[in-house]
Amino acid sequence: MKKVLAIDVGGTKLVYSIINEKGEFLSEIKKTSTPKNIDELEKLFKDIISENEDNIDMTAFATAGAVNITNTKVESSTPNMPDGYNSLDFSKLSKKPVYVENDANAAAWAEYKIGAAIEENNTITITLGTGVGGGFIVDGRLLRGKSGRGGEVGSMKINGRNRICTCHRKNCFEAYASGIGLKKTANETAINDETFKTSIFREKNPDDITTYDIIEGVKQKDNFSLKVFNIWKQDLIIGLINITNIFDPESIIISGGMGEFIDTKEIENAINSEIVVSPVKIKLAKAGNYSGIIGAALLACEKY
Amino acid sequence: MKKVLAIDVGGTKLVYSIINEKGEFLSEIKKTSTPKNIDELEKLFKDIISENEDNIDMTAFATAGAVNITNTKVESSTPNMPDGYNSLDFSKLSKKPVYVENDANAAAWAEYKIGAAIEENNTITITLGTGVGGGFIVDGRLLRGKSGRGGEVGSMKINGRNRICTCHRKNCFEAYASGIGLKKTANETAINDETFKTSIFREKNPDDITTYDIIEGVKQKDNFSLKVFNIWKQDLIIGLINITNIFDPESIIISGGMGEFIDTKEIENAINSEIVVSPVKIKLAKAGNYSGIIGAALLACEKY
Repeated sequence: MKKVLAIDVGGTKLVYSIINEKGEFLSEIKKTSTPKNIDELEKLFKDIISENEDNIDMTAFATAGAVNITNTKVESSTPNMPDGYNSLDFSKLSKKPVYVENDANAAAWAEYKIGAAIEENNTITITLGTGVGGGFIVDGRLLRGKSGRGGEVGSMKINGRNRICTCHRKNCFEAYASGIGLKKTANETAINDETFKTSIFREKNPDDITTYDIIEGVKQKDNFSLKVFNIWKQDLIIGLINITNIFDPESIIISGGMGEFIDTKEIENAINSEIVVSPVKIKLAKAGNYSGIIGAALLACEKY
Repeated sequence: MKKVLAIDVGGTKLVYSIINEKGEFLSEIKKTSTPKNIDELEKLFKDIISENEDNIDMTAFATAGAVNITNTKVESSTPNMPDGYNSLDFSKLSKKPVYVENDANAAAWAEYKIGAAIEENNTITITLGTGVGGGFIVDGRLLRGKSGRGGEVGSMKINGRNRICTCHRKNCFEAYASGIGLKKTANETAINDETFKTSIFREKNPDDITTYDIIEGVKQKDNFSLKVFNIWKQDLIIGLINITNIFDPESIIISGGMGEFIDTKEIENAINSEIVVSPVKIKLAKAGNYSGIIGAALLACEKY
């Protein structure tokens, strides 16, 4: 059975382990911080690989950023990665095959193969965290597009409230449905709002209300927080309606930090009452915190 | 070489011919009006098929409405088709194989195989007519979804102007980017608008301005018409940005009646300055008025 050294490269930490083609862990999961300098990062990659190379068939990376169509390079890096990350040729890091995949795509593949969407050949995994990521499985295959950059659902324009996204564009789905989106909805709603005047956060400057405040406020049944969270949910639902109508998927899997705060049944009912295709199931992710390395390992096994 | 009797079923007319697996016409293209009664329509289908059955390998239909995943039935019919159309089992109409496909999907396949998107394995055909239809080719395969209804891009919610669509839902792409959308944009814009007061249509009741008025007004450089057409284009561009970011396609092919009025280069530049994936080409459809029967015939040849 194939053995893959799988490495998840995030802006702050790096996670790795050896995984077999069934998605099972064959070694302890190791964590280390991500070097801020590209030379140190490349050296770290090489050290981890050479340490394990005799014991594996290939290496798989799950990484932030858009990956090229041959799965060898990160073409458009994210600001939290070191300068020069997008000139690194991953295929040169090892004598054995190296496969690189976007982390949202890898997570979607893990959900499809061993997680919440097993045998659902049309399934979408949406990651709701600081941002919004998406991985799309169409007829049993990962949607990558002409250049490998497909699936950028966070940049879908959904709304007319003219919110500016962190990418400086207007009305991105990510600007509304992410954790940062929830904070912005709170900041905007608080201005001249009746429920804010009696809210547990009424002493705060509207701009200082955080994502965590609203999550806490919802737990305490604070009316302002409930109102804000409801607007956030409606924005999320619009984005999910759009992708459901286009992809007609069996399921949408919600992963990421914001996922734990939503009622999947409520979201599912709201979507299914608005779509023109047949009903979709909304489920929480199952592949866990290591879906990135599992998905990358399984995709590498498909290719090599 | 395989020979297919291909029939395009529209609400008002029915078009058919015999087409080979290269998409070439082997017989005269015949047209007749679509019967308003399901029994008459079924009889007409049977008559056309039995007349040609000895001379063909299979029959292919391109039709309005959502087609099931086995390509044998129209599952959700459109209001302009006879009652009972969705209980018709197309596979029983002939002794030989019968294949049914949604007309927008068939048109996209025709563009991919013999039209404007040859060898572009990731391409989308958008039909801008009375409504907005879409056909999506992902990695060389037609996107159909779990139930065959995928590609309903007309139902994507794009805007916050709260326009009610003909489907009674709010903010559908179709409600803005269709021919009817252009009329609605004109009707809404005319109210209290300075350019309308000096427009060539100023004597008209705002609600009576038509799609054709605006098209004519644009030709005459009427400021009001130019303004309306520009709003329509911006709405169209938002929808095309969304699908470009998700699919990362090589091209988007514009077909349908409204297509002839747009400057593809202008639209392409506007999209490419906003997307996060690599640039897309915007092109007009080439497969012509008979893309529905050509695409259905070619898809049938892939299956049988």
